[in-house]
Amino acid sequence: MSVLVVGSVALDTIKTPLGSVKDALGGSATYSSVSASFFGSVRLVAVIGKDFPSEHINLLEKKRIDTKGLVIENGKTFRWQGEYGWDLSNPRTIATHLNVFAEFDPKLPKDYRDSKFVFLANIDPDIQDRVLRQVARPKLVACDTMNYWIDNKRKALLKLLPKIDVFLINESEARELTGETNLLLAGRKVLKLGPKNVIVKKGEHGVLLFTNKGIFSTPAFILESVFDPTGAGDTFAGGFMGYLAKLGKCDQASLRKAIVYGCVMATFAVEDFSLRKLSSINFGSIKKRLRQYKKLTTF
Amino acid sequence: MSVLVVGSVALDTIKTPLGSVKDALGGSATYSSVSASFFGSVRLVAVIGKDFPSEHINLLEKKRIDTKGLVIENGKTFRWQGEYGWDLSNPRTIATHLNVFAEFDPKLPKDYRDSKFVFLANIDPDIQDRVLRQVARPKLVACDTMNYWIDNKRKALLKLLPKIDVFLINESEARELTGETNLLLAGRKVLKLGPKNVIVKKGEHGVLLFTNKGIFSTPAFILESVFDPTGAGDTFAGGFMGYLAKLGKCDQASLRKAIVYGCVMATFAVEDFSLRKLSSINFGSIKKRLRQYKKLTTF
Repeated sequence: MSVLVVGSVALDTIKTPLGSVKDALGGSATYSSVSASFFGSVRLVAVIGKDFPSEHINLLEKKRIDTKGLVIENGKTFRWQGEYGWDLSNPRTIATHLNVFAEFDPKLPKDYRDSKFVFLANIDPDIQDRVLRQVARPKLVACDTMNYWIDNKRKALLKLLPKIDVFLINESEARELTGETNLLLAGRKVLKLGPKNVIVKKGEHGVLLFTNKGIFSTPAFILESVFDPTGAGDTFAGGFMGYLAKLGKCDQASLRKAIVYGCVMATFAVEDFSLRKLSSINFGSIKKRLRQYKKLTTF
Repeated sequence: MSVLVVGSVALDTIKTPLGSVKDALGGSATYSSVSASFFGSVRLVAVIGKDFPSEHINLLEKKRIDTKGLVIENGKTFRWQGEYGWDLSNPRTIATHLNVFAEFDPKLPKDYRDSKFVFLANIDPDIQDRVLRQVARPKLVACDTMNYWIDNKRKALLKLLPKIDVFLINESEARELTGETNLLLAGRKVLKLGPKNVIVKKGEHGVLLFTNKGIFSTPAFILESVFDPTGAGDTFAGGFMGYLAKLGKCDQASLRKAIVYGCVMATFAVEDFSLRKLSSINFGSIKKRLRQYKKLTTF
């Protein structure tokens, strides 16, 4: 089954202690679409400006991503500029130019409305809700967010959560949303806000899954060279959704395996700037790294 | 087979945001002996002063720990005073009174010299070496250390490492010892210093094992109530050694399982002050928590 991805397509200017890129392909929907595309077909909904390089559209189409929902508006593409320190964790935002993304209010193409697997990448929760209402009968809806929406759109987010099957949130956001410093208590409190399952992303320390049937904890892949962590969470989400859509089911065991696939996909995002590495691999690379991951974690 | 444990027996005065204790039973050898005792017999080598409460000796003997090597000297027992903040990670040391521990230069009782499984808890690497030379033919030697010895006794530590089968070190110590911030590179560099295996302890984020045959990564148990993290690393080491000694072997698969047992044991150390919880459990509690750990991590 297809994965429907709604989010941002952006041009990123990024500096890390290991190098820099200017106006490189980025955005939450870009990373998650490309990541999901390794598992099956993907429908992309996003907005770009007239300045968006055609080579990037070619890349998406080469990955067999359906770009019918990629609207080109008069104006400039969303741009983000950030800088990472040596810890390569939280970037400092230098500049955010929303440009055409400021007016993003997606209308799904008619033949996207039967989508079963829906990933609402990090955008305004009101818009996430409006998108969701355009999908006829979704089987699994996953949703990401960020501290900005927790601060400024808490009500809308809380209204949305009961409609969500898998809510993805990072460690500090889970603490902020619930006011709990203990991550176990924070995860459980997020679950009580309504989503069926909660995934807490801990970056280099791995991932936690909270469900009514118990908790799953898995470490991150340990990597020699992390170049640029931008897009790791979205790539995780794309792999997670892609695997579930391929399987066509979302029971507990499948959710756990999907998380492992997500972790594996994220490793390819961080090994180079932008989507350079992620877009250059094939399914063999994924299977090889999955075997390494199993070897790393089995006891 | 027995586990020989050499280290400190202390009286700890500890404050955490959740409470405090004064002159409570502590010390690296105490935590690791009691932890190892659940798996089989333990031989303890340490020094205490005449002020050491007999109830604590009773506790050790109730756990069938051989205290022939627990020397009582004229003077006061080693005391440590520390305070934890809300993150419950690195404590602030308020006071350290070495007392009789300052002159600790252990002589193994004759019938300890055939010990096969040896745990050299965190003490001066010169003393660790002197102890090791008194053991006839050890099968597995594990050794812990701390930043103080890395700073002040680096030469002695580097001389000792090639004699060690399992070197236990925490995340920041591994970085300090090697000058590498990337934990994968740091772990590999520690391995090159001579020990056959290196265990990097990451606290609430789990454990990494580095060997010439590959790496193992496992998350920590996720706990609702962490009261006092003091002794968690030593309790981990005790469970790790106890399990291996019970098994009588130390191949790669056994090392991984021993690490999981170590993680399980550590959870009992942190759930209350001192050894209150750890000394009150039985093997059924351990088996139950091991099942929970498997459920938590299996995909």
